[in-house]
Amino acid sequence: MTIPPAVKIVEVGPRDGLQNEASPVSVQTKIGLIDRLTAAGLPVIESGSFVSPKWVPQMAASAEVLAGIGQKPGVVYPVLTPNMQGLEAALAAGALEVAVFGAASESFSQKNINCSIDESLDRFAPVITRARDQGVKVRGYVSCVLGCPYEGDITPAAVAGVARKLAAMGCYEISLGDTVGVGTPLKAQAMIDAVTAHLPVTMLAAHFHDTYGQALANILAVLERGVAVVDSSVAGLGGCPYAKGAAGNVASEDVVYMLHGMGIHTGVDLGKLIEAGTFICDRLGRPNGSKVARALN
Amino acid sequence: MTIPPAVKIVEVGPRDGLQNEASPVSVQTKIGLIDRLTAAGLPVIESGSFVSPKWVPQMAASAEVLAGIGQKPGVVYPVLTPNMQGLEAALAAGALEVAVFGAASESFSQKNINCSIDESLDRFAPVITRARDQGVKVRGYVSCVLGCPYEGDITPAAVAGVARKLAAMGCYEISLGDTVGVGTPLKAQAMIDAVTAHLPVTMLAAHFHDTYGQALANILAVLERGVAVVDSSVAGLGGCPYAKGAAGNVASEDVVYMLHGMGIHTGVDLGKLIEAGTFICDRLGRPNGSKVARALN
Repeated sequence: MTIPPAVKIVEVGPRDGLQNEASPVSVQTKIGLIDRLTAAGLPVIESGSFVSPKWVPQMAASAEVLAGIGQKPGVVYPVLTPNMQGLEAALAAGALEVAVFGAASESFSQKNINCSIDESLDRFAPVITRARDQGVKVRGYVSCVLGCPYEGDITPAAVAGVARKLAAMGCYEISLGDTVGVGTPLKAQAMIDAVTAHLPVTMLAAHFHDTYGQALANILAVLERGVAVVDSSVAGLGGCPYAKGAAGNVASEDVVYMLHGMGIHTGVDLGKLIEAGTFICDRLGRPNGSKVARALN
Repeated sequence: MTIPPAVKIVEVGPRDGLQNEASPVSVQTKIGLIDRLTAAGLPVIESGSFVSPKWVPQMAASAEVLAGIGQKPGVVYPVLTPNMQGLEAALAAGALEVAVFGAASESFSQKNINCSIDESLDRFAPVITRARDQGVKVRGYVSCVLGCPYEGDITPAAVAGVARKLAAMGCYEISLGDTVGVGTPLKAQAMIDAVTAHLPVTMLAAHFHDTYGQALANILAVLERGVAVVDSSVAGLGGCPYAKGAAGNVASEDVVYMLHGMGIHTGVDLGKLIEAGTFICDRLGRPNGSKVARALN
């Protein structure tokens, strides 16, 4: 398997990132961030979550955000829809792509959404069916693919099992998340190998956290397996809820720098991406989590 | 080429790291750091530099440091010796391994040590000969192997040329330094390929900086080429002199975490290594540059 000539970057900063930032962010700031990410050439920008504001107050007003951003033709602005109520709200807000969120760890599923993995999949089934009936594409996330904060190691077979089920239920892309960032390159490759025994690699995305500094090495390892979709967060937005002060999502700038250095096409303008990161870090009053941004700013 | 089953970590924090830290460090603190690194199982600990304190005040008293540390049998404590005067002082201090420092970039050589690459090699020749006559091993550094802060790109052929000359002059190991941290994985592999066209890979060490967050990915890339010696700096000691506030040396903890996660033997106790990093960061009053240390502390 050769390294893919082009990679699709799925920018998750405005959702996965901001959801885990302590400082609240106004609708206008979210719109400013997403518009800057659009200008930077990102092909996919996760823009909100239709979930009860009681549980995730940072994601309130996702409908206002979707209505306020300048949606560029060809760019996708997916939102998270954990249940039917969220899906209906997302459809009403005009979302054209949604995402559901499963786990490869039973303990994580229980602690995070208070049900077993299979129960969570049962809940997603009608959400996925309804979305597809409306012509809306559905992305499936699998968390804890290289380890769980509660039970430690997760087998590649467990990941493959959940990924297969989400694909069979109608998800067009499966994002494999190293939620705690504990993975290392050979484990990442073994996990991908287990999943590609059942699904084509073109359906898979790498969603790796940089909590232990391993994200870029792990991304390189799975590029070598043919994975051509990478999730990342501008300025490394979103810390790690399992280790105070530690890093969470890998920074988009650092991913893009590596890919471009390897001659891999992304369509992203690195300079404009860094500007978007500087914009949101200034608003949040937080240091920039991208080493590329820190080196060039 | 398969990934090596064991990797030798060359800990450069007490020299390359502290040399680039703004805060002065006492002899006692340096000894405390080196003794903790010895206890952590590092096989090689670069411990000082015999250079004029007029130019590098941080490295004054390297003889006192060498005399004060508890040298463990089998562990090597090399020191930098840029000229004959430095070598004689190092020999007098009982150094059993020394290092010389060349560049793959003409501009860098001129700006850093005020002479051409070939002139610098001519100066090293008698130093290397005299060291070897005394039974002292000599390591050769090559800087700017993946880019230069003054002239940008550096060709793999230029790196191979300097590496060959240092080897021919009697260096037993050649440490290939991405001094500005601008490299990416395929460029790192191409550079190694150019050098291994002339020298066995067992003579080569990777010395990669993390200024652009690429160090671990680049290390993974050269492990895939068979490189089995990696230079790193505990807690990421030593910033980047070419980008204020940016990272310099890759953190030893993050390298060891990746290698152990890949099943590669290092002989290093990660917990004790983190303790050594915490010790020196507390003394320097600086944040810990290792993501592994931040996640686990």
